[in-house]
Amino acid sequence: MYIGVDIGGTAIKAGIVDESGDIVKKKETATNVHRGYEAIEKDIIDLISDLKKEVEEKGNTVKSIGIGIPGIADVNHDIVIYCTNLKWRNVPLGKNLKEHFNLPVYIENDATVAGLAEAVKGSTKGYKNSLFLTLGTGVGGSIIINDKIFNGSHGIGSEIGHMIVGENFYDCNCGNNGCLETFASATALIKYTKKLIKEGYKDTIIMDKIDGDLDKLNAKIIFDSAKEGDELANKSVDRMVKYLSIGIGSLINIMDPGIIAIGGGISKAGEFLLDKIREEVPKYVIFNEVKFADIVIAQLKNDAGIIGAAMLHNFM
Amino acid sequence: MYIGVDIGGTAIKAGIVDESGDIVKKKETATNVHRGYEAIEKDIIDLISDLKKEVEEKGNTVKSIGIGIPGIADVNHDIVIYCTNLKWRNVPLGKNLKEHFNLPVYIENDATVAGLAEAVKGSTKGYKNSLFLTLGTGVGGSIIINDKIFNGSHGIGSEIGHMIVGENFYDCNCGNNGCLETFASATALIKYTKKLIKEGYKDTIIMDKIDGDLDKLNAKIIFDSAKEGDELANKSVDRMVKYLSIGIGSLINIMDPGIIAIGGGISKAGEFLLDKIREEVPKYVIFNEVKFADIVIAQLKNDAGIIGAAMLHNFM
Repeated sequence: MYIGVDIGGTAIKAGIVDESGDIVKKKETATNVHRGYEAIEKDIIDLISDLKKEVEEKGNTVKSIGIGIPGIADVNHDIVIYCTNLKWRNVPLGKNLKEHFNLPVYIENDATVAGLAEAVKGSTKGYKNSLFLTLGTGVGGSIIINDKIFNGSHGIGSEIGHMIVGENFYDCNCGNNGCLETFASATALIKYTKKLIKEGYKDTIIMDKIDGDLDKLNAKIIFDSAKEGDELANKSVDRMVKYLSIGIGSLINIMDPGIIAIGGGISKAGEFLLDKIREEVPKYVIFNEVKFADIVIAQLKNDAGIIGAAMLHNFM
Repeated sequence: MYIGVDIGGTAIKAGIVDESGDIVKKKETATNVHRGYEAIEKDIIDLISDLKKEVEEKGNTVKSIGIGIPGIADVNHDIVIYCTNLKWRNVPLGKNLKEHFNLPVYIENDATVAGLAEAVKGSTKGYKNSLFLTLGTGVGGSIIINDKIFNGSHGIGSEIGHMIVGENFYDCNCGNNGCLETFASATALIKYTKKLIKEGYKDTIIMDKIDGDLDKLNAKIIFDSAKEGDELANKSVDRMVKYLSIGIGSLINIMDPGIIAIGGGISKAGEFLLDKIREEVPKYVIFNEVKFADIVIAQLKNDAGIIGAAMLHNFM
């Protein structure tokens, strides 16, 4: 048995996962970021201890612990180098867990972990080389090459949200202009739609759906309106699809994966989004007369973090 | 012994290469593209036959044949799918060579082959994961992952010249706008410099060096003028470096290679170019406080094609 932990800004979710990647038992607790690292580490240890006890009570053993974090860890999985949302910087999470439990501990970026789960049990299963893009508040990425997680020589790869794909009207949080994240995240979609409305583009059903209150705008409302044929909503979605497809096209030109899965909140737009992406991407693929990557919606939703984290032991 | 063949628009170069990647003997002939595929294939067979005979006369055997082409081949190395410059499309080069010589035949893109040579005997030797960018008439790329050539699931990867890095004043030959090739090739550098001069930017030592004849302009003249402090030349070079660095930065964010080598005609600008790139790239690397890829100038010049092609057998 394996234990997987998915650390997010809102909740810490942990689970017992069996050899085939199925979750046997789940437990979670609120993150409460403001408490700071030590208190959160204690809760993580408590969650893992409880689950480990359950495993052992049934006569089984825990073989390893895997953790997904919204940031990056060092290549030895000892130190979490950055977790912007959690305000962690150089915290010894892996080191402390290894010492406490005397078990192998693997720490990886949460998008990487979710992409691994898709490769083991989800939408990209059966493909040797795959990419996973999570389109949510930001844009995260995961790369599987030859059935293993690939995050480069220093562990800083697969930051697909920060590939530059064009020029944008606002800068990315990272300081650069034109990051994929500033075109293809939910945040970006909302920002551009608000911009158009503020510039006078008011003949839209979106205004009814949000009672004229721009603070109520979200990606679902924009996609729903686009599906209903709203001009403004389609303008926003099409712009997003254009730059997302430039990014995907460049990734195909560079890495030529067997399959690309789209996850995260935006992926709930489903076939409507997928049809548009599949139509747009070939324009940017240089050898588009040859077979290239399949593009699909990710399958595993909220459980991907726990499953992927638990599976890390076998795919590093 | 191995035979490596480097097929270019001007010459077909072939060589006998020993186990350690050293060229023992070279032979070449003019390509004369206009003759068409069959005549060129015959010359390739003749070149290989001559070299094979020499190897056998010394009591050795040829273990495999490797070919570098300015295009792409199918994953079985039977058919050359495209070679734009040679006007080849779906020609059975690999199939015919395999039948003729009854030896393993490997066909790869010329940039991929040159990148492999750098990894085996040149600037990227000793790094498990490396990228090679060749900046010449166009921009080519080569990716080595875990000490093997990586060109994806359908053999269409490593087309780094066609990743989109911005918006440009002219379209790429591929039909898209903003390809790295349209910013970072010699062609792009010349095109932008001509544009500035035509727009009235005439206070430049470049005009003396080319006797006022824009047709005489080349990348060397622009770099030489930049080194001498010419404002126009530096404006051109800096723009090239900016977009090249956006491309390299994105590649680091995605793939995090151990090292990136710059080859091709533009790389003759040496340390002058390298200093500028090394200063600019960190701006676009998201985790730039952690160690990231070394950036160097490629070492093997004209021989890279033969050496890399001959080494293909061991790195696929």
